[in-house]
Amino acid sequence: MAKDNKKLVEAITSMDEDFAKWYTDIVKKAELIEYTSVKGCMVIRPYGYAIWENMQRILDGMFKATGHENVCMPMFIPESLLQKEKDHVEGFAPEVAWVTHGGSEKLEDRLCVRPTSETLFCEHYANIVHSYRDLPKLYNQWVSVVRWEKTTRPFLRSREFLWQEGHTIHATAEEAIVETEKMLNVYAEFCEKSLAMPVIKGRKTDSDKFAGAEATYAIEALMHDGKALQAGTSHYFGDGFAKAFEIMYTDKENKKVYPHQTSWGVTTRLIGAIIMTHGDDNGLVLPPAVAPIQAVIVPVQQFKEGVLDKANELAEKLKAAGIRVKVDDSDNSPGWKFAEYEMKGVPVRIEIGPRDIENNQCMCALRYSGEKRTVSLENGLELFKNAVVEMLEEEIPEGMFKKAAENREKHTYKCTTMEEITKALEENGDGFVKAMWCGDEECEDKVKEATGVGSRCIPFEQEELSDKCVCCGKPAKQMVYWGKAY
Amino acid sequence: MAKDNKKLVEAITSMDEDFAKWYTDIVKKAELIEYTSVKGCMVIRPYGYAIWENMQRILDGMFKATGHENVCMPMFIPESLLQKEKDHVEGFAPEVAWVTHGGSEKLEDRLCVRPTSETLFCEHYANIVHSYRDLPKLYNQWVSVVRWEKTTRPFLRSREFLWQEGHTIHATAEEAIVETEKMLNVYAEFCEKSLAMPVIKGRKTDSDKFAGAEATYAIEALMHDGKALQAGTSHYFGDGFAKAFEIMYTDKENKKVYPHQTSWGVTTRLIGAIIMTHGDDNGLVLPPAVAPIQAVIVPVQQFKEGVLDKANELAEKLKAAGIRVKVDDSDNSPGWKFAEYEMKGVPVRIEIGPRDIENNQCMCALRYSGEKRTVSLENGLELFKNAVVEMLEEEIPEGMFKKAAENREKHTYKCTTMEEITKALEENGDGFVKAMWCGDEECEDKVKEATGVGSRCIPFEQEELSDKCVCCGKPAKQMVYWGKAY
Repeated sequence: MAKDNKKLVEAITSMDEDFAKWYTDIVKKAELIEYTSVKGCMVIRPYGYAIWENMQRILDGMFKATGHENVCMPMFIPESLLQKEKDHVEGFAPEVAWVTHGGSEKLEDRLCVRPTSETLFCEHYANIVHSYRDLPKLYNQWVSVVRWEKTTRPFLRSREFLWQEGHTIHATAEEAIVETEKMLNVYAEFCEKSLAMPVIKGRKTDSDKFAGAEATYAIEALMHDGKALQAGTSHYFGDGFAKAFEIMYTDKENKKVYPHQTSWGVTTRLIGAIIMTHGDDNGLVLPPAVAPIQAVIVPVQQFKEGVLDKANELAEKLKAAGIRVKVDDSDNSPGWKFAEYEMKGVPVRIEIGPRDIENNQCMCALRYSGEKRTVSLENGLELFKNAVVEMLEEEIPEGMFKKAAENREKHTYKCTTMEEITKALEENGDGFVKAMWCGDEECEDKVKEATGVGSRCIPFEQEELSDKCVCCGKPAKQMVYWGKAY
Repeated sequence: MAKDNKKLVEAITSMDEDFAKWYTDIVKKAELIEYTSVKGCMVIRPYGYAIWENMQRILDGMFKATGHENVCMPMFIPESLLQKEKDHVEGFAPEVAWVTHGGSEKLEDRLCVRPTSETLFCEHYANIVHSYRDLPKLYNQWVSVVRWEKTTRPFLRSREFLWQEGHTIHATAEEAIVETEKMLNVYAEFCEKSLAMPVIKGRKTDSDKFAGAEATYAIEALMHDGKALQAGTSHYFGDGFAKAFEIMYTDKENKKVYPHQTSWGVTTRLIGAIIMTHGDDNGLVLPPAVAPIQAVIVPVQQFKEGVLDKANELAEKLKAAGIRVKVDDSDNSPGWKFAEYEMKGVPVRIEIGPRDIENNQCMCALRYSGEKRTVSLENGLELFKNAVVEMLEEEIPEGMFKKAAENREKHTYKCTTMEEITKALEENGDGFVKAMWCGDEECEDKVKEATGVGSRCIPFEQEELSDKCVCCGKPAKQMVYWGKAY
């Protein structure tokens, strides 16, 4: 009954041949999603959803450790409420889904399915914030939102997607700005530590701000194909929403003043980011922190006496150390299993057969590097357990991060003229371009038109590549990361 | 700055005076919810949401321990898909919200916001189930659903509510029936152990079945006002949905056959059930397993040296034992704090003041019984920690369960004639009526018309109160629980 392992591997398009097809092959073959008859929406299957659950658990812990509380707002926003903040409605109204009927009754005020929930949080804050004693409120919710995109791709751009949206309200602008930056740092730490994905932290240019924000901060990552992916955003709203929604509080001097707000979010898009940062032509490569299965044990010649017992003994030892482990004792061939768990990106594969047992050792294969090594089973499996823990907690995440960072460095080009940009992209392929900018939106547009790369962010970590704008030659204000975006 | 504790307590309507108002007073004053401008939808506030998170964590663990996996389906269902199973669409179409436009574009096939997701799961199963090797699939999702109710009440009946919906598919009818019953038992165990709420397990009569089900099982609980609340349901579908959605698999004999399905769900309604099972005129009374704060420490004369230090020391000891504990060192008066945490239903209040410290003891007050007792702080706080753990894990849940069970017994009436039903309800107030039934729908309707109580369920635990139907006098088939329902 064993299937042919060749077949499984051959079914993935190679990354170099067709990156987009490679991507969709992985999301399907690794059983992350399945399409539905609802255009632009997908089923997130158990293996994909388990990755999201692991992300949620880690992020939720980080949010709670920084004083945030979870709430749940309605999924609907009345049209009249959405319209209260001018920039916000202009940004979102063109891409929302409208509910016009409840049962057979036509609604007087249409409801949109939330594309984001600033308006609902503002309405709530107006109800519950009255005094400086009520501030700050540090809220978050884990929900799905809907944006009526024309072209969609699993995880990267879908009509419905899962996310968390933090919404906070503070007495002062200073506090709100601190919060905005704090949460960007939380995201960056999560991406770098838990997803092994290096990110650039920076501010978006004004043309790229969130609808209604005073400033938008983002983390940007570079994918295998040289395109940039915005992996998370954090917005500072000033008191604009408070004024539009008439949220006021009485300060310590007994004066009525406006509070200041923020919002911040990451989405299931992060699953797409993992695929395109770490994946290879054998499939998914998962960072151990979010992998549904961290180690898979494949028994070799499992019909021989003692093999399955030993495999289960190893599994119990790892389970007791808090590792998510699976023994695959199905009747598929070891070769088929190897290909299967490579496709699924399981970080460590452990092989154990009669000869290994004889030598009191097993074979460990690391998914991200392909490296194989023998590990001793002596000393009551203590050495073995410690070795696997070390791989999952240190060697693999650090190795994956280093590999991704090196790839990013290789595809980051410092340019001081438009010609250099064009040349760098032509010669080395798509990537991040670092170049100076005068701050003028016209130049931003021209760079994109002439070279194809748009501004991604103004990084916090600045370098002075020259004192002139790459486009107009006038004095430069800052260095910008440019790139083609997902 | 201390507020007046009288004010807070007086603000709740007494249960006997106006039960409905008592209920809404609690949901507002305990800060579980806030109303919104979206009619019939609410904000679940941090304290309310934390109760739901605790329920989720416990239930999700029970689902995973019984082999279930989480997935996520789209929130939309195309009208054409909803219509595939005749009974199902008839049951749900009248109460769904319809999305007719995406952005400015009118949709060809309207989408409803899921009222429940059988149709989406069936579409998915048709895609992924082909062989007996693909079965069973034991799936669950944690999402919100929408039903366009005319009259709404927080947690009990709202247009949007949070729930989990399990959807499983099996090779045989037998396996599916086992699953249906297993999950009803999981729900009953959760309600009785974690929520301290006694429930009746049984089958719904045919008139009360889920739209499209062959059999619906439910757990029913009795509220303080003598009304019955359906706290969870589990449905057996047979192969009806499989036929409607053309889900077939190849069995071991290589024949194409239909699989059998189930679904089961509990909702945020359980928060309403807790309020109406355990609450009193001082507010909420929370079962320790789901209480966001399990023990609150109130320092008395906290400005005196050593008091706050000791309060924090007690808190650390409890935290280390895994207890959710809070020290309230705000400048509100102890009396105000007592009333506040009574309102919020915190299971244990710990008072510690200078005199207590002198005597190396503290005062513990149990929310559910009002009982107060001194607890020793000797032996490095070990006795204290053990005492609080014992209260939270045994004494309080058992005491709450007993109290609720006694109340239910007091309001359960065995009746053999219609006159007895009317008399029992008049004399003792609303409650459960146990009475025999012939199985005829006409009699079921007549009982409701004549006495006001409808059939709640045919309990698994049968008693033979007489051999005649309470209504028509013909031979009885089974005993039924009757009641007025939420």
